[in-house]
Amino acid sequence: MFQVIGERINTSRKKVQAAVAEQDANYIQADVARQIDAGADFIDVNAGARIGHEKADMQWLLDVIVPIATVPICLDSPDPAILEMAYAMVDKPPMINSISLEKERFDTMLPFLKGKTCKIIALCMDDAGMPASSDAIVTRAEKLVSALDDVGFKQADIYIDPLVQPISTDITKGNMVLDAVRQIKARLPDVHITGGLSNISYGLPERKIINRTFVTLMMAAGMDAAIIDPLDPRIMATIRTADMLLGNDDFCMRYLKAVRAGLIKS
Amino acid sequence: MFQVIGERINTSRKKVQAAVAEQDANYIQADVARQIDAGADFIDVNAGARIGHEKADMQWLLDVIVPIATVPICLDSPDPAILEMAYAMVDKPPMINSISLEKERFDTMLPFLKGKTCKIIALCMDDAGMPASSDAIVTRAEKLVSALDDVGFKQADIYIDPLVQPISTDITKGNMVLDAVRQIKARLPDVHITGGLSNISYGLPERKIINRTFVTLMMAAGMDAAIIDPLDPRIMATIRTADMLLGNDDFCMRYLKAVRAGLIKS
Repeated sequence: MFQVIGERINTSRKKVQAAVAEQDANYIQADVARQIDAGADFIDVNAGARIGHEKADMQWLLDVIVPIATVPICLDSPDPAILEMAYAMVDKPPMINSISLEKERFDTMLPFLKGKTCKIIALCMDDAGMPASSDAIVTRAEKLVSALDDVGFKQADIYIDPLVQPISTDITKGNMVLDAVRQIKARLPDVHITGGLSNISYGLPERKIINRTFVTLMMAAGMDAAIIDPLDPRIMATIRTADMLLGNDDFCMRYLKAVRAGLIKS
Repeated sequence: MFQVIGERINTSRKKVQAAVAEQDANYIQADVARQIDAGADFIDVNAGARIGHEKADMQWLLDVIVPIATVPICLDSPDPAILEMAYAMVDKPPMINSISLEKERFDTMLPFLKGKTCKIIALCMDDAGMPASSDAIVTRAEKLVSALDDVGFKQADIYIDPLVQPISTDITKGNMVLDAVRQIKARLPDVHITGGLSNISYGLPERKIINRTFVTLMMAAGMDAAIIDPLDPRIMATIRTADMLLGNDDFCMRYLKAVRAGLIKS
């Protein structure tokens, strides 16, 4: 079953930043509740946008969100000190967003992760930058899985982000990441594939149809999680429908329930 | 580039049947022109619904359509006598719809096809009925390609129809056909994969979102043609978008042109 990581609680979003600045707990709690109602399986929390305030903002957000979140939280920070504090505040094993192969992030995140009970998003990024080929994505994914295995992570707790890149400047970028996902799933069948999708449509008009068509193609290749806005009804309807078509919905029950709830329109 | 076989000229459609009965050439020509404007690469012509009239109806339809069709016609009949007449009437090498492994159809179609210059749709159907597994689809596809090779067909002129089946009664039917398409494209890379899509959603509500999500999944697996209604704007927008994402649209030019023409909406 496809997993949705709800991306809305991010202080780079203007309304969230204002709510944090004004300590408007009701706004934050209402947004989280709506994401969960809409089908979010994790609530991403990113407090990085107010420079110098990340630790205090993360603490306040978790104080507000943890008591009402019925799904796990995805702790989104590059800073192990903030993640240590956050990890101690949650009441369910969280997801951590993220580790990468960039030397500084890798060297600080790996000791933090050792012995933790959590899921981890692993970005196929290194100090050379974005991957330039399918093979580069696959090689980086294998390195990440091997390093995470060394500190005790099962494949099933690892969410590889192959890093979707815009096709407006290079039409091969879609097939590049689709091929990589197929190869990763063939070699490491228990790992999950996740990521943001909207980079694919950067620079093009009518971006939402591109994003939801692309998530469908990625699901066919093996993507089984994504970092998206669960309050976008059309991408959620597409994901539910594709998940049914891929056999992850016994007797089509979840699809039929979503249709009855008015969530899926032809 | 994905190929659209426009399915509208079929006497099983009430308005088409009435137009044929009344010899309303304007109606037929206008419908064909709209399909081509909307992006049809072939115009399917099926005159089978008025029992006892198929030959005369096919002849009249081709008399009306051939002079205005700027794309090839897909001659849709099980009867080689009718196809011989029709084949002599077209001005461009047609597509023939279809041959299958059902003994009677196979034994009459193969001699007809020998030496013809055309494309051929080959259904993975035999006298045991619909295929019950991915392996059965692949085995039937290989038999069809082998037999067509024997009468002079190149793989690139063969359009395999793996026969989409409803998921409402068996949730595995989506993966079954997707796996088969991937295997056929791996073993016979030059053959095309086509077919109708709407069987997938039989028995379920909000069928159109299921059909257009399914064509996207099938395109990821290797489908590169479909028999659809080109006047359904949402499935056409989805196909254009998926074709771009799969790298078949240099510099996104066709996508951008379609957006400017108002054909693609987020």
